[in-house]
Amino acid sequence: MDSEKGYRGPALETMRKFGLKVWDEVILKTEKGEFRGVILPRAETGDEHHIVLKMNIGYNVGIRAENVRSAEVVGEKVGHYKIPEKEFPYDSEKPNVTLLGTGGTIASRLDYRTGAVIPAFSPGELYGAVPELADICNIRTDKLYAVFSENMGPEQWIGTAKAIVREIENGADGIIIGHGTDTLHHTASALSFMVQNLPVPVVLVGSQRSSDRPSSDAAFNLLTAANVAANGNIAEVIVSMFGPTSDRFNLLHRGTRVRKMHSSYRSTFRTIGDVPLGMANPTEIKYFRKDYNGRRTDREVHLDAVFEEKVSLIYYYPNMKPDIVESLIDNGYKGIVIAGTGLGHVNKPLYEPLRRAIDEGIHVFMTVQTLWGYAHMYVYDTGRDLLQIGVIPAENMLPEVAYVKLGWVLGHTENREEVKDMMLTPVAGEMTAREPPNAYLIYQGEIPEVERFLKEGMM
Amino acid sequence: MDSEKGYRGPALETMRKFGLKVWDEVILKTEKGEFRGVILPRAETGDEHHIVLKMNIGYNVGIRAENVRSAEVVGEKVGHYKIPEKEFPYDSEKPNVTLLGTGGTIASRLDYRTGAVIPAFSPGELYGAVPELADICNIRTDKLYAVFSENMGPEQWIGTAKAIVREIENGADGIIIGHGTDTLHHTASALSFMVQNLPVPVVLVGSQRSSDRPSSDAAFNLLTAANVAANGNIAEVIVSMFGPTSDRFNLLHRGTRVRKMHSSYRSTFRTIGDVPLGMANPTEIKYFRKDYNGRRTDREVHLDAVFEEKVSLIYYYPNMKPDIVESLIDNGYKGIVIAGTGLGHVNKPLYEPLRRAIDEGIHVFMTVQTLWGYAHMYVYDTGRDLLQIGVIPAENMLPEVAYVKLGWVLGHTENREEVKDMMLTPVAGEMTAREPPNAYLIYQGEIPEVERFLKEGMM
Repeated sequence: MDSEKGYRGPALETMRKFGLKVWDEVILKTEKGEFRGVILPRAETGDEHHIVLKMNIGYNVGIRAENVRSAEVVGEKVGHYKIPEKEFPYDSEKPNVTLLGTGGTIASRLDYRTGAVIPAFSPGELYGAVPELADICNIRTDKLYAVFSENMGPEQWIGTAKAIVREIENGADGIIIGHGTDTLHHTASALSFMVQNLPVPVVLVGSQRSSDRPSSDAAFNLLTAANVAANGNIAEVIVSMFGPTSDRFNLLHRGTRVRKMHSSYRSTFRTIGDVPLGMANPTEIKYFRKDYNGRRTDREVHLDAVFEEKVSLIYYYPNMKPDIVESLIDNGYKGIVIAGTGLGHVNKPLYEPLRRAIDEGIHVFMTVQTLWGYAHMYVYDTGRDLLQIGVIPAENMLPEVAYVKLGWVLGHTENREEVKDMMLTPVAGEMTAREPPNAYLIYQGEIPEVERFLKEGMM
Repeated sequence: MDSEKGYRGPALETMRKFGLKVWDEVILKTEKGEFRGVILPRAETGDEHHIVLKMNIGYNVGIRAENVRSAEVVGEKVGHYKIPEKEFPYDSEKPNVTLLGTGGTIASRLDYRTGAVIPAFSPGELYGAVPELADICNIRTDKLYAVFSENMGPEQWIGTAKAIVREIENGADGIIIGHGTDTLHHTASALSFMVQNLPVPVVLVGSQRSSDRPSSDAAFNLLTAANVAANGNIAEVIVSMFGPTSDRFNLLHRGTRVRKMHSSYRSTFRTIGDVPLGMANPTEIKYFRKDYNGRRTDREVHLDAVFEEKVSLIYYYPNMKPDIVESLIDNGYKGIVIAGTGLGHVNKPLYEPLRRAIDEGIHVFMTVQTLWGYAHMYVYDTGRDLLQIGVIPAENMLPEVAYVKLGWVLGHTENREEVKDMMLTPVAGEMTAREPPNAYLIYQGEIPEVERFLKEGMM
């Protein structure tokens, strides 16, 4: 029934027991206190133990059904949980953009006006929810996956890469990929390696606050991504997400140099060790630099979608024991990326298992857990010892990017020299010759171009 | 011989073969090119394969001895590698500070005027190298360890904690701990848990550039740390290191909220998810906040130096396989800290091994790999699933701090409820109720107090 939408098991039992239905405003009493809010429909197939309330402050909270001692219905907020579907107007003058869905908040909860939390994904639904999209481009949609981004992996990366190539070959002027934010940056780097020689922008976008919350970034991010995909000149895999804490503009991040840096802020995605490529809003795009691949009219995109899954990423911590590395050897791993301390260091007890790993043909690369800066292993004895053992410094590749790249490289070859050559040859800006002086812990005020463009009247 | 100082094995053979000695300015030809610089004495017992040159640009580089094809001596820079030792003047009016040495650049290379790279550590040597120290305080020194900081671990943390307590009970007005920078923040958090109810400041300090380089931060950091230890009012474990890229001031970071964020910058240490406690230089100290433990005159310090070594820290990555967790179970680990994605998530294939781990009595805590923000596991189905399995969110504890704290907690008890209670009860500011709005990716310009104090004429 619609009034029980998405609920099952113990949660549904509790709702029936107390006569509750979706969109009721209720006070639920539990041993941990009283919770007042509106019962939301469930958006994802998920657990059957919680009733989800939207609190007045805008947050959703899951109340464990079995803890509900009593319930009082105090009102009803009728939800318009059918998104008005309108035919997306086709305009032959406008660029054609494909929106590929993988899951996440943008794709699943787009009706930011009505408070509904059901998925909106067809062109008609998108138009009904965010009609401004039609001012920017024509939109075709393809729902590839519907997973939380923590469950994205090589299978989905490869499938998405293939879909990108197909859409470009079919004439798309730009691609948007809707993605959960947790591992959006991992997917961005995987696609940067798996789809090369792009002629059009591939823009990953998500939202940190779902569209049923007043502070949602979903619509602004989607409109900005549509503008960048349709009209932008950066023919690379990029991430378009909130720049500052407000919705003045998105920053455009290169797919191999971006990382999620805050668990809840909308301005969570940050370019690390470099300056972003530019900034944009739904109607404007400004570029900070010129060293990007520009848009082309040909369709000569190159698919290179392989991945060896037996790779691992270890963040070193003090007192790490040899068994951590030994287990990877024993379990048949073929590649290990270490995020070492400082310039690329680990403790002495790891030397022996690392030597064994390399002797047995495992490819070991060093990155830095400081995230900013380079692995420089000639400076101290520890680094030189590790070099001698055969650990290879991966310059300023981010640990997560090195992990993705190593899996991709090992999908091509296991020859030691070839692996090293491929890892240390930049493919998509994942290593840079130098770090600009304003690339460290940048928030926003320290990018001079941002200030200039804002002063010049960009919204 | 002094002219071969520290060299042995193949490096020494090569030096003898070409008639080279320490302090010679040489051109070494290798198959990879020509290197010109001054042969430095070796400061640490280390590898025997490299000759270390100081290049003109200030960097040291290790040349593999067997690669040297020819060598030409073009000059000599006589090194004053005996630091002038002068008796440290005792002034009964001045505070008494103990400098505990663990290793690292501060303790091993302090003669920033002469270019020497030998250790300077006795009070007389320190005074010879940095005479301004005597303007601040009386100094007593104790060289506890001489290890690169990547080799610091529970043994050294416990030994250092005991030495701190001993020195305080003996009347020290403040403690400085000289430490390599790689794991300085891990040690800071360990000491924050192991030494409680501090009546005086405990200041960890290191340097990112050794004192033989023109841009060294060693002397400025040491003088500032001495000022903070002798005269400061923060009776907690804190880190005092370069604030901006210049030597205008140090920032003072709480020991449980600080992380090394750049592999080579001097401004590498940053307070995460909070604002620093204050700023200082060798003569001034300014506080940004009031919520710190103040200096006391009693000596009622509490030693609580225990650590269970069977703990591990896992940074989740996409496609992580169950064997990563299973190996920890099979190898007898008792505690696991996960740095999850987003609000504290991992992929579904890890649910089963995590359930088994918890069933077998392993304590599993969740932190966030975004570093900034909180683990909020009620928001999405994945988080609720993990909560149901028994994974416990550790609020906004940094992953590395949660690792250290879990080892410390498990040194006290393995009772499930007690472990949870201790982990989730703040001991030394490692969890905070909220994140201030200017605590995200702060560099320096966004701390209003810094601007104010600088405008008021602080050097």
